[in-house]
Amino acid sequence: MSEIVRVAVDAMGGDDAPAAVVLGAVNAVNNHPEINVTLVGVMDAIEAELAKYKVPAGRIDIKAASEVIDMAEPPVVAIRKKKDSSIVVGLNLIKTREADAFVSAGSTGAILVGGQLIAGRIPGIKRAPLAPLIPTLNGVSLLIDCGANVDARSEHLVQFARMGSIYMQNIMNKKRPRVAIVNIGAEEEKGNALVKETYPLLKECKDILFIGSIEARDIPKGKADVIVCEAFVGNVILKLYEGTGQMFLSSLKKGLTSSLLSKLGAALVLPSLKKTLKDFDTKKYGGAPLLGLNGLVVKAHGSSGPAEIENAIVQCISFKQQDISTKISQMLQV
Amino acid sequence: MSEIVRVAVDAMGGDDAPAAVVLGAVNAVNNHPEINVTLVGVMDAIEAELAKYKVPAGRIDIKAASEVIDMAEPPVVAIRKKKDSSIVVGLNLIKTREADAFVSAGSTGAILVGGQLIAGRIPGIKRAPLAPLIPTLNGVSLLIDCGANVDARSEHLVQFARMGSIYMQNIMNKKRPRVAIVNIGAEEEKGNALVKETYPLLKECKDILFIGSIEARDIPKGKADVIVCEAFVGNVILKLYEGTGQMFLSSLKKGLTSSLLSKLGAALVLPSLKKTLKDFDTKKYGGAPLLGLNGLVVKAHGSSGPAEIENAIVQCISFKQQDISTKISQMLQV
Repeated sequence: MSEIVRVAVDAMGGDDAPAAVVLGAVNAVNNHPEINVTLVGVMDAIEAELAKYKVPAGRIDIKAASEVIDMAEPPVVAIRKKKDSSIVVGLNLIKTREADAFVSAGSTGAILVGGQLIAGRIPGIKRAPLAPLIPTLNGVSLLIDCGANVDARSEHLVQFARMGSIYMQNIMNKKRPRVAIVNIGAEEEKGNALVKETYPLLKECKDILFIGSIEARDIPKGKADVIVCEAFVGNVILKLYEGTGQMFLSSLKKGLTSSLLSKLGAALVLPSLKKTLKDFDTKKYGGAPLLGLNGLVVKAHGSSGPAEIENAIVQCISFKQQDISTKISQMLQV
Repeated sequence: MSEIVRVAVDAMGGDDAPAAVVLGAVNAVNNHPEINVTLVGVMDAIEAELAKYKVPAGRIDIKAASEVIDMAEPPVVAIRKKKDSSIVVGLNLIKTREADAFVSAGSTGAILVGGQLIAGRIPGIKRAPLAPLIPTLNGVSLLIDCGANVDARSEHLVQFARMGSIYMQNIMNKKRPRVAIVNIGAEEEKGNALVKETYPLLKECKDILFIGSIEARDIPKGKADVIVCEAFVGNVILKLYEGTGQMFLSSLKKGLTSSLLSKLGAALVLPSLKKTLKDFDTKKYGGAPLLGLNGLVVKAHGSSGPAEIENAIVQCISFKQQDISTKISQMLQV
């Protein structure tokens, strides 16, 4: 029997916390016998939500944390001052090895800062990138880095490429993940100073399958499995994916109700349209791992519902079972 | 009566040249009495295409150019060596004031390099940005810069913001264009080194309406009229717009034919769907101006058809009539 994975979950993080988080956690333990959850946050609020559901004995416990970090708070200050916040308390459970992973839909900045300061980076890892999975016509790709640590150097990007490759291989079962660097043209001599410096270093990496540059128009086509970029660019890509999706949805709706004939047709196509759009919802995959830390930290989307929270929690199983952190450590020995 | 605008058009540039270009030029002069066109390129090829249409006397002439610059050629070398290429010959028509504008669907790199080297920048302008119009839920926004000159400095971005504002005000009739800088968060303290340095400079500009940062997810919502960014980021935004559009179209088609009911509905909604997708086609606006040059250079999309070429040519009318180059010069005096 495989080992139990203990996931600490920030019950106070996200637009619909604690209700959505607690339900997501309940579903996770009910559907996955290999997971136990520790809900972190305000005791009364969590107990009130938990009382609504049947929970198998011993599968969910609560770790009290009296404070909540708001989305708008400056991350560094918040992490330092709010020692009893759900994010700080949850991350400490990783540090003390009481939990294998921490999932939060709260402030991205606080999770990124706290992840590095409290859980800490694997020795040798220079930066811990936030790496969401994004939907493509081919399945999914890992976009690394989308975090808040901008102005990366080439040595950071090389580590991102290698960690991303390990993740896609072990968690998403891509045998030889194709790694590409985001660029403004396909040719090696194109790019800004950072890309030009990083490109030859990626070519030299023997542990990844580097396929060269990828232009942004080819990202949705799924031409690479690991898409390497500096965090500012990654953030733009991730948010534009979300924004164009909403744009198409909103104007499709308008178009579909523009004539009597199209209204009739709309009723017939709506189910398949909704499914299509759901396929391209960046939230679907539940959470973005923060790679390169001691233990796993997963950032779920702020607007996560119970299903997304459950996905984020479930993602931690294979991370633990595949022992990604050890594989990342070993990568640094090569 | 308003002055005639003479537009030099690269007959050899683009995937469907010279056929699509020549037809676009013919339509432009037929639909717009204030435009005359000079087709630049291989004489025989142009004459063979022109022979297919009725052209009013004296409205289209041909300037011979025996060479063609390929998409794959390194731009600087191509501009220097191929003195008799359609791009070099066409740009020289601007330099000698024989034409007011030059339109090409050829190599972006060669047009950008040639524009600066041959047409030349307005004195005081440090960089000539490529600024396409992108569709949004509100209409269109100007994305500046999407060119090939990466690693811009803050002083460049400030000029982009001011030139973009002049363009949107005079060509697109936005009374007080809202100018925003692409950033990874809404707060002033967020961003990479370049954005942090540029933000306070934009705040100080009295001739623009600076509304602060824009996150990529808000670009498709049309939250700003002039979207300022460094060329690498602009290129990613432009190409991802294109790529996500294709992704949605392709998966919508698949979804619509997935069941008998949705197939029936699809026939009814197809016209409105096609219109919606066309509304968000970045090619629709015909071409992206290269701002800050002596004379107007317009880069049309490589896959432009006759309608896009016509739009690109027509765009030159108001650029000339509104005397944008003089307005940009005057901006530098302030």
